[in-house]
Amino acid sequence: MDYEFFMKEAYKEAIKAYKLDEVPIGCVIVYNNNIIARAYNQRNTLKNSLKHAEIIAIDEACSVIKDWRLEDCTLFVTVEPCPMCAGAILQSRISKVVFATKNNKAGCCGSILNILNNNSFNHRVEVVEGILLEQCSILMKNFFKNIRKRAKKDD
Amino acid sequence: MDYEFFMKEAYKEAIKAYKLDEVPIGCVIVYNNNIIARAYNQRNTLKNSLKHAEIIAIDEACSVIKDWRLEDCTLFVTVEPCPMCAGAILQSRISKVVFATKNNKAGCCGSILNILNNNSFNHRVEVVEGILLEQCSILMKNFFKNIRKRAKKDD
Repeated sequence: MDYEFFMKEAYKEAIKAYKLDEVPIGCVIVYNNNIIARAYNQRNTLKNSLKHAEIIAIDEACSVIKDWRLEDCTLFVTVEPCPMCAGAILQSRISKVVFATKNNKAGCCGSILNILNNNSFNHRVEVVEGILLEQCSILMKNFFKNIRKRAKKDD
Repeated sequence: MDYEFFMKEAYKEAIKAYKLDEVPIGCVIVYNNNIIARAYNQRNTLKNSLKHAEIIAIDEACSVIKDWRLEDCTLFVTVEPCPMCAGAILQSRISKVVFATKNNKAGCCGSILNILNNNSFNHRVEVVEGILLEQCSILMKNFFKNIRKRAKKDD
């Protein structure tokens, strides 16, 4: 599986979020080497706490697969998933998660908690990190830099 | 706030799930002492891993409040939330969660993990447990007893 190819597609989704002033996170879900769902963070735009990229993509993937089990799917996301999204990945029985950059504030694939690999839960997920790291990390940094710049202007 | 009154409403939702052969979990979200969202688990019926009672109710509450922040809301649920739902509660900044019975397999309000009160995250949630404990616990036990009975018949 060409991790970089699919992460580039997730990055394209993240750019859509960036253009809307949303935290720039993008996601694609791959099944049989095809992208079956793609999404970007739209929490502010849709005024809905659930509208993280991963959740929108999982919702779409369930519609495509016509099952709540996404066992043979791989989820690509530009930033390490938060507890909600890591939990949704677990609930969907997704087999593999590939992410680009760590989330030191809320990441739940090892940074704060490790929801995807906890022997107490009934499912474990293979995790690959660091694909397209620099590009995705710079996008996040630019987003937060812009926010601080605007906050300073408003002072 | 009358915890028992609202938990009885969550229980009524759980009964709807039970009648559909879904894991019988029900939820209501309360704002200004009014129920603004109510839902029950529909994972199998809707063939979608996201359709836990809490997620459906949070989605509805965001529509009603017209914001992703549900800061002044209390969420009542018959069973301790899983990682996905605890994460969604955190993302919604819900201030209080009241649940009936613990979930020793996946509960994330203290049983397996404590997502709602972790100093590394940017939000903490007040948790009250044990309201209508027996009733909600018996409903869960009956559900799993029925499953085992059917599995035995199929043997």
